[in-house]
This record gives sequence, C-alpha cells and structure tokens, in this order.
Amino acid sequence: MLNVFHIVDLVGTLAFALSGATAGVREDYDIFGVFVLTAATAVGGGVIRDICIASLPPAGLVSSAYLLIIIAAMICVAFFQRLILSFEKATLFFDALGLGFFAAYGANKTWEHTQNIELSLLLGCISAVGGGSLRDLLTGKPPAIFSQDIYASAALVGAAIQLTGSAGIIPQFWSAWCAIIGCTLLRLISLRYKIGLPSIKHNGL
Amino acid sequence: MLNVFHIVDLVGTLAFALSGATAGVREDYDIFGVFVLTAATAVGGGVIRDICIASLPPAGLVSSAYLLIIIAAMICVAFFQRLILSFEKATLFFDALGLGFFAAYGANKTWEHTQNIELSLLLGCISAVGGGSLRDLLTGKPPAIFSQDIYASAALVGAAIQLTGSAGIIPQFWSAWCAIIGCTLLRLISLRYKIGLPSIKHNGL
Amino acid sequence: MLNVFHIVDLVGTLAFALSGATAGVREDYDIFGVFVLTAATAVGGGVIRDICIASLPPAGLVSSAYLLIIIAAMICVAFFQRLILSFEKATLFFDALGLGFFAAYGANKTWEHTQNIELSLLLGCISAVGGGSLRDLLTGKPPAIFSQDIYASAALVGAAIQLTGSAGIIPQFWSAWCAIIGCTLLRLISLRYKIGLPSIKHNGL
Repeated sequence: MLNVFHIVDLVGTLAFALSGATAGVREDYDIFGVFVLTAATAVGGGVIRDICIASLPPAGLVSSAYLLIIIAAMICVAFFQRLILSFEKATLFFDALGLGFFAAYGANKTWEHTQNIELSLLLGCISAVGGGSLRDLLTGKPPAIFSQDIYASAALVGAAIQLTGSAGIIPQFWSAWCAIIGCTLLRLISLRYKIGLPSIKHNGL
Repeated sequence: MLNVFHIVDLVGTLAFALSGATAGVREDYDIFGVFVLTAATAVGGGVIRDICIASLPPAGLVSSAYLLIIIAAMICVAFFQRLILSFEKATLFFDALGLGFFAAYGANKTWEHTQNIELSLLLGCISAVGGGSLRDLLTGKPPAIFSQDIYASAALVGAAIQLTGSAGIIPQFWSAWCAIIGCTLLRLISLRYKIGLPSIKHNGL
Repeated sequence: MLNVFHIVDLVGTLAFALSGATAGVREDYDIFGVFVLTAATAVGGGVIRDICIASLPPAGLVSSAYLLIIIAAMICVAFFQRLILSFEKATLFFDALGLGFFAAYGANKTWEHTQNIELSLLLGCISAVGGGSLRDLLTGKPPAIFSQDIYASAALVGAAIQLTGSAGIIPQFWSAWCAIIGCTLLRLISLRYKIGLPSIKHNGL
C-alpha cells in the first residue's frame, strides 16, 4: 500500500512539475528561472501544508526524489516539446490524478498531525491547489482556482472522502482510492463537459 | 472581558470577510473562488502571525466560528447586495473597528508568546493588514497599504497602545480599549478628512 | 571572525534595504509604505528561511539592528537622492556582496539546524534572492530572478561553496570567504559582460 501511494505521489509531482516547466519555457525564463518555477509548482502546496502543521523542514524541500523529478520534467520540456504537445490530454489526466492524490495525501498527513477535521479539509485542498496558484502568482496571472471549472472543489471532495478513512469510519485502503478516483473523475468530467460552479450574480455592486 | 474581546474579534472578522466576499463577487469568481478569497481576507493576517510565533496550527484554520462567519459573509453578499451597498459606511466603520481589534489582539498574542517589543509591534500590524493585502495580491491589485491614507500606521499605533498594557505599564483592560478606540478613530478621521502620510519626493531618481 | 560576519551581514542588509527604499520612492508610496517595502526587501529572504527551518520567531523580525538599518536606508533615499544616484555602481556592488553573504549565511544556518545538503542549498539561495522577489511581487513586477542575468544561480554557487566548509571538508574560515567572493564576483562579471544563462527554445509550444 505504501509503495502504491509513493508511486502515485511521484506521478502527481511529475504532472505538476511538467505544468510548471511548460509555463516557464512559455515565459522565456532562463534555465534557472524554469527550475525555480518548476520546483514551486511541484512542491509549493506541500510546503505551505507542512509549515501550517509545523512538520519542519517541509518534506518537499528535503527529498532528492522530488529534485530528480523536477530536473526530469525540465529535460522533457526542453527536448521533447513535440511529444509533450501531442500528450496534452495525458498531461491534463496526470494533473487531475495529481490533484486527487495530493488532496488525499495532504488531508491524511494533516489528520495524523492534528486530528482536526476543518484543518485537514483545508490543508488537503491547499496541498492540491497551492503549487498551481504559486505558479500563476509568480508569472503574473490571476490564480486559476478563482475562475476555472471545478478544480479546488474537486480537491475538497477528495480530501473529505480520504478523511472518512483517516478517522477510521471506512478502511484506509478504500478511502484513499475512492478519494483519488473521485477527485480525479470529478475534475475530468468537469473538463470534458465544461461544467463549472455557479458564480454569484451582481447588480449595482 | 474575555467575552467582549471574543465578540469584537468576530465582528472584526465579519467586516474583513464582507470586504473579501464583495471583492470576489466583483471579480466574477465562482462560488468556491469567492469562498477562498473571503477566507484569505478574514484569516490571512492571523495565519501569518501564528506561523511567525510558531503557534501552530494557525488559529484561523482550526476554528469553526471563523468558518461560519465566512459563510455568513458570502450569504450576505449573495442575497443582500442592496443592503450592503446602503451600509457602505457601516462596512467602513466595521473594517476600521476590525483593524483596531486585530492590531490589539495580534500585539497581545505575540507579546504573550515572545515578550519581544519589536516583534509584537510588527506582528500586531501584520495581523491587522495582512488579510487585506492577501486579497489585493490575489486579485492582481497593488496592496492598498502602499498607497492608501492612514491604514497600516493606525494599526501600528493601536499595537503600541496595547503593548503598554501587555507589558504591565497600564491595566490590560484600559490598554485594550484605548488601542481599539485609538486605532479605529485614527483610521476614521483619516478617511473623513482625507488625511494621509506624506510621501518622499523624488527628483531625478 | 564572527564580528566580520556580522559587519558583512549589516552591509548586505543595508544594500538590500536601499534597493527596497529606492523602489518604494519610485512607486510614490507614502512614508509607511516605503518602510514596509524596505523591510520586506531587507529581511524577507531570511524570514522565509527561518520559517522553513522552524527557527522562530524569525531573526529578521526581532533584531533592532535591522530596524535601524531600514530607517537609515529610508533617510538616505529621502535626503541624499543625488548621492545615491551617483553611487549606482556602488549599490550594485553592495547588492552583489549582500547576495554572496546571505547565500553563505543562509546555507550555513540551515546546515547547522538540519544537516541536510539539499535543504541548505535551497534555503541559502532563497535567503539571498527572497527579499528582492518579495519587493518585485509587492510592486506588481515579474520577479527579477526569472529573467535577469546570473543572479539566483550565483547565490546557489555561493551556498555550495559555503557548505564544503559547514560540512567540515575545508576550514569554515576559508569556505565563508570563498563563498562570498565567488558569488559576488560571478554576479559582477555577469553584470559587466552581460552574461546570462541560456533559455530553453520553444517552437510550437
């Protein structure tokens, strides 16, 4: 079980790293700038979570596995741009998978440290969307969580499913997979059918 | 005394939440985006303060009272937009009151954790202006603290008054109320008479 | 040795403070706004480092020496604008020196707290470039680390040299000076000869 979790973690990190590296190359950053943006996107959400639960130093800054993934993502984007373009849908799929895993992993880690439901939901969600938000802020774009289709709310659903397992209501094994699959499917369906949350109408405001 | 503090805290949080929710609706965010912006505005300053004094997890992320206030603010902005418009001056008043309370509360909490005057002044001020600055950064505006009339400096004055009580020079009861009333009045007077701090002239720079 | 370190620290802080104060005056902020931007630029990188290694409260928020330097930098920019203009190259030199020192100091402090090479490299680099990045984010500019000539990568080289000493491979005394001189020279040479890192070409991306 731990090994499976670990592999999905690395796949999710790679997906986010690819999205950061692609954004950096599009902005014409130099190699080191692309590295910074790729790293911020891949580990940013987890670093914020670890700071809030005082699990320091943040896991994302001390693991060489993450570092290798960041470098691998940069190499992919540098040398296989055509390949990445043709895989655009695969990237979206991995991104949605990463969203699901990070939501489940973040909610579970926070629960183990604090046993607080509200915090676990919030930090599960922040783990999943934090990296992408940092990427948008650093490249001067309004964070996508504010305008996009179902994204952060899918992460919240994933975190909630995972917590039923973390709190011992259903077996951990099932909660993790239900959370990952539920969040990922919700995200993919919203992308496929262009479903978004309603916004609040404003008149005269 | 504690109860009064608690009520003023909730009123201040509500004022900041209303300002965040209003900004989110104006930017046409979806419901979840408005929630994120409202929460960041209402609890952002306190979270930064709690991270800096290692009071983790941050109080703003684990209290369901704050969560209810955030949701209440969103409901207000969604259903009572005319009411909120007609209350614009009341909102400014609550915002100034919130500024005063957060400055006093932040300075006092930091003092109790660290007994350091400089840190207490800085974090009292950051507690009060942090949420609004996050709101501005996330919506792509230059933070208001940089251009506005007397705002962060009023928070600094409030924090300084509160510290005379935290350090035992005058009774806590009086320092808290003097800090809240002093900071709030200073802010309201600067709004009413359009008083601002001078800026540094630059020629040839 | 400690005294020399301390003096270079203050010189580096002053250089970053001057760059923040200059940016604030150029943006027409009021006096308090200039103070906030100056402080964020001078101590921002160290605060992020201290949060990540749980050395709380952050050193940059509790030392009155830093506060005096921030105020001194504001006075310089307010009253001696012509002088500062004529010293533009001196400021660039001090900035490069500050970069070198902060990289060495940050890498060494992180190593002493965690004995982790990757973290020490990352946080040495973040100590050195964090303040300038905050300054750019707060004034609505894309962070200079992404587009500039050799800057963050010079800090990384400095952190790496310092770590050879922190880990006991070469004497601490030599590693500190080699790190400061190496990083500063690298930065100055890249400025003088307009040397930058290559960027990743993109076609059809």
